Amino acid sequence: MRTSRLEAFSDGVLAIIITIMVLELHVPEGPTLEDLSHSATGFLTYLLSFVYIGIYWNNHHHMFQISDRIDGTVLWGNLHLLFWLSLYPFTTAWLDESGVALTPTVVYGVNLLGAAIAYYVLQLRMMRLPVTGARLREAVGNDLKGKMSPAIYILGILLAFVEPWLALVPFIIVALIWLVPDRRLERYLAEHRETVGD
Amino acid sequence: MRTSRLEAFSDGVLAIIITIMVLELHVPEGPTLEDLSHSATGFLTYLLSFVYIGIYWNNHHHMFQISDRIDGTVLWGNLHLLFWLSLYPFTTAWLDESGVALTPTVVYGVNLLGAAIAYYVLQLRMMRLPVTGARLREAVGNDLKGKMSPAIYILGILLAFVEPWLALVPFIIVALIWLVPDRRLERYLAEHRETVGD
Amino acid sequence: MRTSRLEAFSDGVLAIIITIMVLELHVPEGPTLEDLSHSATGFLTYLLSFVYIGIYWNNHHHMFQISDRIDGTVLWGNLHLLFWLSLYPFTTAWLDESGVALTPTVVYGVNLLGAAIAYYVLQLRMMRLPVTGARLREAVGNDLKGKMSPAIYILGILLAFVEPWLALVPFIIVALIWLVPDRRLERYLAEHRETVGD
Amino acid sequence: MRTSRLEAFSDGVLAIIITIMVLELHVPEGPTLEDLSHSATGFLTYLLSFVYIGIYWNNHHHMFQISDRIDGTVLWGNLHLLFWLSLYPFTTAWLDESGVALTPTVVYGVNLLGAAIAYYVLQLRMMRLPVTGARLREAVGNDLKGKMSPAIYILGILLAFVEPWLALVPFIIVALIWLVPDRRLERYLAEHRETVGD
Repeated sequence: MRTSRLEAFSDGVLAIIITIMVLELHVPEGPTLEDLSHSATGFLTYLLSFVYIGIYWNNHHHMFQISDRIDGTVLWGNLHLLFWLSLYPFTTAWLDESGVALTPTVVYGVNLLGAAIAYYVLQLRMMRLPVTGARLREAVGNDLKGKMSPAIYILGILLAFVEPWLALVPFIIVALIWLVPDRRLERYLAEHRETVGD
Repeated sequence: MRTSRLEAFSDGVLAIIITIMVLELHVPEGPTLEDLSHSATGFLTYLLSFVYIGIYWNNHHHMFQISDRIDGTVLWGNLHLLFWLSLYPFTTAWLDESGVALTPTVVYGVNLLGAAIAYYVLQLRMMRLPVTGARLREAVGNDLKGKMSPAIYILGILLAFVEPWLALVPFIIVALIWLVPDRRLERYLAEHRETVGD
Repeated sequence: MRTSRLEAFSDGVLAIIITIMVLELHVPEGPTLEDLSHSATGFLTYLLSFVYIGIYWNNHHHMFQISDRIDGTVLWGNLHLLFWLSLYPFTTAWLDESGVALTPTVVYGVNLLGAAIAYYVLQLRMMRLPVTGARLREAVGNDLKGKMSPAIYILGILLAFVEPWLALVPFIIVALIWLVPDRRLERYLAEHRETVGD
Repeated sequence: MRTSRLEAFSDGVLAIIITIMVLELHVPEGPTLEDLSHSATGFLTYLLSFVYIGIYWNNHHHMFQISDRIDGTVLWGNLHLLFWLSLYPFTTAWLDESGVALTPTVVYGVNLLGAAIAYYVLQLRMMRLPVTGARLREAVGNDLKGKMSPAIYILGILLAFVEPWLALVPFIIVALIWLVPDRRLERYLAEHRETVGD
């Protein structure tokens, strides 16, 4: 089974998730700067979730570029990941409307954690594919970032019980870690262009 | 007529359906776990409908991968299927907001049944295409799942008159039946890769 | 300039238009059949607009399949068409919520007419392209349907002043005229497959 | 890294942005022309934002058609642009609902300016790519339009402090400047078709 249509479908879902989150940004009640300032939390959480979805799209793009054939379990692993990501607009909106209260912050963290685990499971599954697997294992290496992210998310969830706003610090750190471009897969692709037959 | 643009359009519609359903998940009124618990039904029905759309995308993907040329009746058969699927956000939201009452459950079941029949009609139509048809007939075989699903949906609709919540059991069973990957088409593709010219 | 990305973008816009209209279908207030019956007008207008968008997608698909290179004016002619189509969710929702009152019916008719004219203008423009033009002129022929549709829409708009519901009859007739598959382009493509280099 | 999937994702996001703005157009309260007239501002701002997104899609399409390989910084430069564009539905809705008041007009102008700068940064970055860069530099030339647009946006933001409605004049002028098809890239592509290997 070729990856092209799975990529197209995932692109569609990610493009929609990243865009409909803006629908949850409520238009300010009045026309003043003060009215707009009430949207500040919403704007920040929107930015954070936008960056997360961007990172997932970016990594997803790289991972499937290495592979050219997948099987049915990868399809479902991918849908599993998209399911967690599709909840971002919901948990982001709740986090925002509650003004970063305890439970919504924990739920947001669980959502982030769920997506990270789903991505990890999908990657593990793809590493077991016949040809793609070997390439991906070589390219990903020890996957420090992938292993650290869930741990930092859990730290954030625990910090929320001290003070919800504090939880956002680890969440933002994970985003920053990934924003630094992941050179591993790019380097692999550059070195192996002929073999990948890109 | 090539299938690529029909696939792209269908991917787009399915990606949007699967994602906008989350917009019907109302953000909890307050910031507590109890407020979130009111979204529990919404969450479960969202999950169920997400899995259904995922299954349709999966099967749709497989069916059109076998075919390479279609005609105008397939375009309309496909739009007919997409129409039924596009109603999922509406019927899912009603089911959820009514707290799984009788009429919304029956209407949800009729929606599921309508989509299943539309898929069956589309498959029948594609089986009559010159080259694709023979391949598809061989790949699908006796299509036990495709024939059982409508029957189970009807059972669910009837059960709703006893107790609406009961109807969800057959609906979930259909989802589980299809979640088991459909090896038939994959096997066919694996065996006939050269002839399909994939 | 190749048509592939224009097709992909148009597919995306059409897929979203056809799907977000369902968001305008308000979930019934209560859980009874009577509550659902209040959505009947909404359901019918949704179905009508769904069929229209389906027809436009279908014709758009055929028209761009014949062409392989376009220029900047076609890009804007296409965006002009998409603009009119993007208003369907708005005018459909108003038609529905007013219970088919006079002004909303006329506005809906003007929306249909605007889209038909935009399509006609786009087709005219494409007929003037170097190679594509000659093919398209031959394939489309006298374009009876394309010329009749605006006239029937105008008839509908005029009928609305007698009785708004009556206007829906000509609107539905146009949809039925186009639902009959347009064999012209298909026949052309079948006959000229080698030259089109499909 | 190939550009095809970046284009597909951007197409998806732009198609959604351009279409969901219509969801912010509130259905008129009553069924009369006067009720519709309250949507006039909303309609005009929708049209303006639709044209802007159309222009960005158009330019984006041209720019990436010239390039065939990109790197990770381009991915993020592109997401940065999409982020600014994704705020259009929000700032457009606020502008509309406030009846073109001072602060919303300034914020809308800042949004337009941010997107223009993001596009400029992305273009600069692509101009530094190995092969694509030289082609793009030659094709874009002195980029008068690209340099003038931010200046005119700033003029509009300043004019808003005199009279908010006045600010729309420079904003509309920028749209008109770009609506005149950008022949530079088209000419370049026409002249260098062989080398671009289109």
